[in-house]
Amino acid sequence: MTAIDPVDLTAKLVRCASVTPEEGGALVLLQGLLEEAGFACTRIDRGGVSNLFARWGDKGATKSFGFNGHTDVVPVGDAVAWSVDPFGAEIRDGKLWGRGSTDMKSGVAAFVAAAIDLVRDAPPEGAVIITVTGDEEGDAVDGTTAILDWMEDAGERMDVCLVGEPTCPETMGEMIKIGRRGSLSAWFTITGTQGHAAYPHRANNPIPAMARLVDRLSSRELDQGTEHFDPSTLAVVSIDTGNPASNVIPAQTSGIVNIRFNDSHSGASLSAWLHEELARVAEEFGVETEIKIKISGESFITPPGALSELVARSVEAETGVKPVLSTTGGTSDARFVKSHCPVVEFGLVGQTMHQVDEHVVVDHIEQLKGVYSRILRDYFS
Amino acid sequence: MTAIDPVDLTAKLVRCASVTPEEGGALVLLQGLLEEAGFACTRIDRGGVSNLFARWGDKGATKSFGFNGHTDVVPVGDAVAWSVDPFGAEIRDGKLWGRGSTDMKSGVAAFVAAAIDLVRDAPPEGAVIITVTGDEEGDAVDGTTAILDWMEDAGERMDVCLVGEPTCPETMGEMIKIGRRGSLSAWFTITGTQGHAAYPHRANNPIPAMARLVDRLSSRELDQGTEHFDPSTLAVVSIDTGNPASNVIPAQTSGIVNIRFNDSHSGASLSAWLHEELARVAEEFGVETEIKIKISGESFITPPGALSELVARSVEAETGVKPVLSTTGGTSDARFVKSHCPVVEFGLVGQTMHQVDEHVVVDHIEQLKGVYSRILRDYFS
Ligand SMILES: [Zn+2]
Ligand SMILES: [Zn+2]
Repeated sequence: MTAIDPVDLTAKLVRCASVTPEEGGALVLLQGLLEEAGFACTRIDRGGVSNLFARWGDKGATKSFGFNGHTDVVPVGDAVAWSVDPFGAEIRDGKLWGRGSTDMKSGVAAFVAAAIDLVRDAPPEGAVIITVTGDEEGDAVDGTTAILDWMEDAGERMDVCLVGEPTCPETMGEMIKIGRRGSLSAWFTITGTQGHAAYPHRANNPIPAMARLVDRLSSRELDQGTEHFDPSTLAVVSIDTGNPASNVIPAQTSGIVNIRFNDSHSGASLSAWLHEELARVAEEFGVETEIKIKISGESFITPPGALSELVARSVEAETGVKPVLSTTGGTSDARFVKSHCPVVEFGLVGQTMHQVDEHVVVDHIEQLKGVYSRILRDYFS
Repeated sequence: MTAIDPVDLTAKLVRCASVTPEEGGALVLLQGLLEEAGFACTRIDRGGVSNLFARWGDKGATKSFGFNGHTDVVPVGDAVAWSVDPFGAEIRDGKLWGRGSTDMKSGVAAFVAAAIDLVRDAPPEGAVIITVTGDEEGDAVDGTTAILDWMEDAGERMDVCLVGEPTCPETMGEMIKIGRRGSLSAWFTITGTQGHAAYPHRANNPIPAMARLVDRLSSRELDQGTEHFDPSTLAVVSIDTGNPASNVIPAQTSGIVNIRFNDSHSGASLSAWLHEELARVAEEFGVETEIKIKISGESFITPPGALSELVARSVEAETGVKPVLSTTGGTSDARFVKSHCPVVEFGLVGQTMHQVDEHVVVDHIEQLKGVYSRILRDYFS
């Protein structure tokens, strides 16, 4: 078989309109290429979501290197604001344009091309595993988790795993992620007693309690960072009342808070703190409070070691840039993989991800394939 | 002509569906009755609003007693929640039911009946003036103000004026209003920079600034009350952001504040203070702020004296209750009349005003007419 051109494969994947949870033909395309190259493929579909597992080499191999990525994409958003067809994969000005071009069809194309090159040109002593989900941008309950559940049952194993998400803030090669902060969101309401603004003593306005609570939450320094992590951050992202009448004191107001936390906290410790702060204003202002908390992920880390050194060496050799090991940014499916094996993330510059006119520099796709190829060669050498 | 039954007249007025700015036949009905009793009537219509001026006696009379009221009503609201036809004026359980029955068609009916009785049975040495607007519940820019503007031009004059709004919190006769607090509303926005909740240092969340501002405004004691006034009150009645995405830091959030203020403040002094507080958080948080202020009325007072004593004496004689002189509650058209002449307000128990199943105790209408009649007799005796 011929070599896979990662730019061409990225373009083909972008043309699959795989907005979560639509498979859009993306996994079918990858499965065809991987099977042709000798990978044993299994579609692991669960809860309306499509996922793909592919292994080259033996199941019980002494060494097994895994890749993880996703082919689903976020919606187009404001379609008229795009200057290109979001699913057109047009190449212009040295860039490939379209939804998912950065996040992360180029990453998937690069590791699939690198893996196929390897098994064709220098078949390794060991196994290469490719896991691709169609539910990373959605709830992620039936995505990478479904693949890992299936692997557990089937006795499939990755010794290490590289997630191909965009990791570089501005310059290709500058950042590897060795962990991620945790993320917790909470939706809370404060309820008082409605009334007329001219008779405030007959009402109990919930808004002063909300203001005090939000001021306290926003003013709290959660920590100053830890060995591998930046300081935890808290953002109250919305307060809403929906009362247009200036002469009416409302009965209720609600808020949303998001916390990105490092390893000096846990979802449970932060939940307890939020409950305490709500109880405090409930007491002070005589209001009632309610809170619903969702922990999207705990913080995790693969401490600097063999895997991160392997990846960092390859990145520097291919890009000329010495990457930093970071734990910044949002969540990714590495939060699931870390329960299976050591995991690090390396990928492209993520600046335009989720935005209108998302695009990727064509040369970066080639470079990324180069990095992944070198990692594979080094790992198995 | 026969005496006017104030209960019957209230019922007829309630059956006129005069939701602001609809005249609904209410002023036409009153004009007919007043003209039959010898009042010279002028319809003063301005800006789509209907108003009525009526005078019995000479324009240049040495003594002139005025009444002010409104026939417009607030909308029915949740029509299915009513247990009666809102414009049916049904009498049941000793109460007359319907929109405007309390606020304030019964008040208008009572003073019209009292005035007609007086001029028929004991024609006074002086003039009796009736002013009724169809725009008290709306913007009030073309209502009582239009009548007063016209009177100014026409050389018409009230020496004193009684506004017939409901003034009693619970018991008939318990409260006369000799002034009102001022009212100021402000709509403000705080603008920062949008961003992703995982990268708060790249954004500038406007919500902490909003929380700090609202906490400060809500915590400030404006004053401790003055000789005739309760303490001023401030209510932040809404904060809104409209951001459903817990991973997005919003660019903007907005708030609404309403201040009811006594004579130790003015609309201008409070506006200046709000501007200062906004500037303070703008500085502290590096955000931009905007504010739009509407002063619905300055505080005003007709200090206790001949007029309030006259009204208080009559109230006590007719109801057996000694009224307090108060400046509590919302705004009324007395805020316009006070520039024309001394003004006090006395009327019914206002508990159900603006509510579903608004109603008035039938006996209270008779009592109110008795109070107004006694005031007129005393004034001209
Ligand atoms: Zn992604
Ligand atoms: Zn009224």
